[in-house]
Amino acid sequence: MNRPGAAPSIDDVRAAATRIAGQVPPTPVLRSAAVDDWVGTRVHLKAEHLHATGAFKLRGATNAVLLLDDEEAPRGVAAHSSGNHAAALAVAAARRGIPCTVVMPEGASATKRAAAEAAGAEVVTCAPTLAAREERLAEVLAETGAVEVHPFNDPGVIAGQGTATLELLESVPSIQLVVAPVSGGGLLSGTAIAAHAINPAIAIWGAEPAGADDAHRSLLAGHLVLDGPNESLADGLLAQLSERTFAILQSHDVQVVTITEGQIVEAMRVLARQAKQLVEPSGAVALAGLVQLAARGTPLPEDVGVLVSGGNVDLERWTSVFHEA
Amino acid sequence: MNRPGAAPSIDDVRAAATRIAGQVPPTPVLRSAAVDDWVGTRVHLKAEHLHATGAFKLRGATNAVLLLDDEEAPRGVAAHSSGNHAAALAVAAARRGIPCTVVMPEGASATKRAAAEAAGAEVVTCAPTLAAREERLAEVLAETGAVEVHPFNDPGVIAGQGTATLELLESVPSIQLVVAPVSGGGLLSGTAIAAHAINPAIAIWGAEPAGADDAHRSLLAGHLVLDGPNESLADGLLAQLSERTFAILQSHDVQVVTITEGQIVEAMRVLARQAKQLVEPSGAVALAGLVQLAARGTPLPEDVGVLVSGGNVDLERWTSVFHEA
Repeated sequence: MNRPGAAPSIDDVRAAATRIAGQVPPTPVLRSAAVDDWVGTRVHLKAEHLHATGAFKLRGATNAVLLLDDEEAPRGVAAHSSGNHAAALAVAAARRGIPCTVVMPEGASATKRAAAEAAGAEVVTCAPTLAAREERLAEVLAETGAVEVHPFNDPGVIAGQGTATLELLESVPSIQLVVAPVSGGGLLSGTAIAAHAINPAIAIWGAEPAGADDAHRSLLAGHLVLDGPNESLADGLLAQLSERTFAILQSHDVQVVTITEGQIVEAMRVLARQAKQLVEPSGAVALAGLVQLAARGTPLPEDVGVLVSGGNVDLERWTSVFHEA
Repeated sequence: MNRPGAAPSIDDVRAAATRIAGQVPPTPVLRSAAVDDWVGTRVHLKAEHLHATGAFKLRGATNAVLLLDDEEAPRGVAAHSSGNHAAALAVAAARRGIPCTVVMPEGASATKRAAAEAAGAEVVTCAPTLAAREERLAEVLAETGAVEVHPFNDPGVIAGQGTATLELLESVPSIQLVVAPVSGGGLLSGTAIAAHAINPAIAIWGAEPAGADDAHRSLLAGHLVLDGPNESLADGLLAQLSERTFAILQSHDVQVVTITEGQIVEAMRVLARQAKQLVEPSGAVALAGLVQLAARGTPLPEDVGVLVSGGNVDLERWTSVFHEA
């Protein structure tokens, strides 16, 4: 059910940047001397949690919705999502004035579900498995005739996610290494495409919870490995690579660093205490990954970019996580 | 014991901006669609909590320290402060390589005290009254020969604080109203001087806890009124106007809106939940004040600037405040 096309090109990413400019303002790049000290180099935090929907997903969803032609658009859009893509697609669809249905697993974040509903999407729930999500979505597509906007396999979505890195490298051209979280691989793929078009020497790292490390296993094995564990506090990172995103990551020599749950919480804590940023667990994963690279002695350049991907955490849950740590 | 001079001019503010540029990077201006909806207009959040020391005080302290001549500098600097000015002065002094002593009241925020000590300042404690602070500081000045850098009465400090508004109005020239928190009045004075030099039509509001409303009472009475209550969760806002800051505020037709403790907590909550920013109570006061202006029907222009002044909260205390609210 995915929209046709192979890997998006840098031209697609640049076109996405132009296309979404009126709807998705650039996010700031934040600095914190204490974070620099913690990591041991200059860290440029791309604040993707400061989008209107609280996550980078608004970039890709907006691009995909604006790419719909006049025949497709009136049918509306649909997707399955654990949350941030759902809210982003709902907002992008509402702005174009077309219907949106999202399939969310039971147990998804209440904050994220409320955001999708507030934007006018119809939310349909299903069991929290990939099979159940795909089955329920197929039913929705059959019933409504909507166009699927896949959260990470859609080339328009991947191109949209790449615009974050275009902005980051325009603000800080001296960056030589970028870390992004990896789940289905849409953001990381867009990051690699954008960064390497600007400077092929930039090292691209994915950061992934050890409890959901399909990208790490797959890139080491040289083929998709999807039968490992799949559990993490980082509820936005439980999707798995597709053939398309795997191929993009492989062709860009992307490496993956895995982190523990405790390291995620520690990064959330540092982002709160030092950088004054409230992020969801998934949003702290890239910084946690960078800290692990430093800890294991990976040489770091003077300027490093970190994608802080989202901030949609239920606040009560966040404070309890913080107190338990 | 204050350094000589009357109100600083816009030339002093512009000179301060040039002077501190190498040490104090500009802070971002953040937006949040949810905050806009809450207030009912476009709100531009000047993120002064994102300074290296977590508060705007770094601007004024850096300017004052860099203004010391070669005779004064080796004697070092001293001040009394409830916290954020102490840390800022400590950092500014360390960067110039001169000694710094700060007098802090017992019960001051542990986070703020630790920040001053980490930067190498000698911290001296005293009873939590203005008289005790001034007495202890006089002793320190007599013992050390240090130059006092008053937290808000020093013209160099006031000029430094004004640079925040220079940056804000350069980023968003369409702003027609600015709200800043008011304590001793240094930030609010600098805000008025900077804003009115750029555009005399900009309305300047101070926001003040109802439990420490000397600025509100004084401006209404037309003379300093310092015998009112002086207690608030906003521990950074318990200082009181000086003759100098009062005169500046009066000459700029500054008005003051007072807010309750609950309104401060509510603004902290919205800044966390919606704008993903962790701020200290004092840092949320200007936004809370703007919301009160909207609630009482004060006409608001399309673009409003809000100074989010600081983020140095003890995180455990912040989360408990949040849960109790």
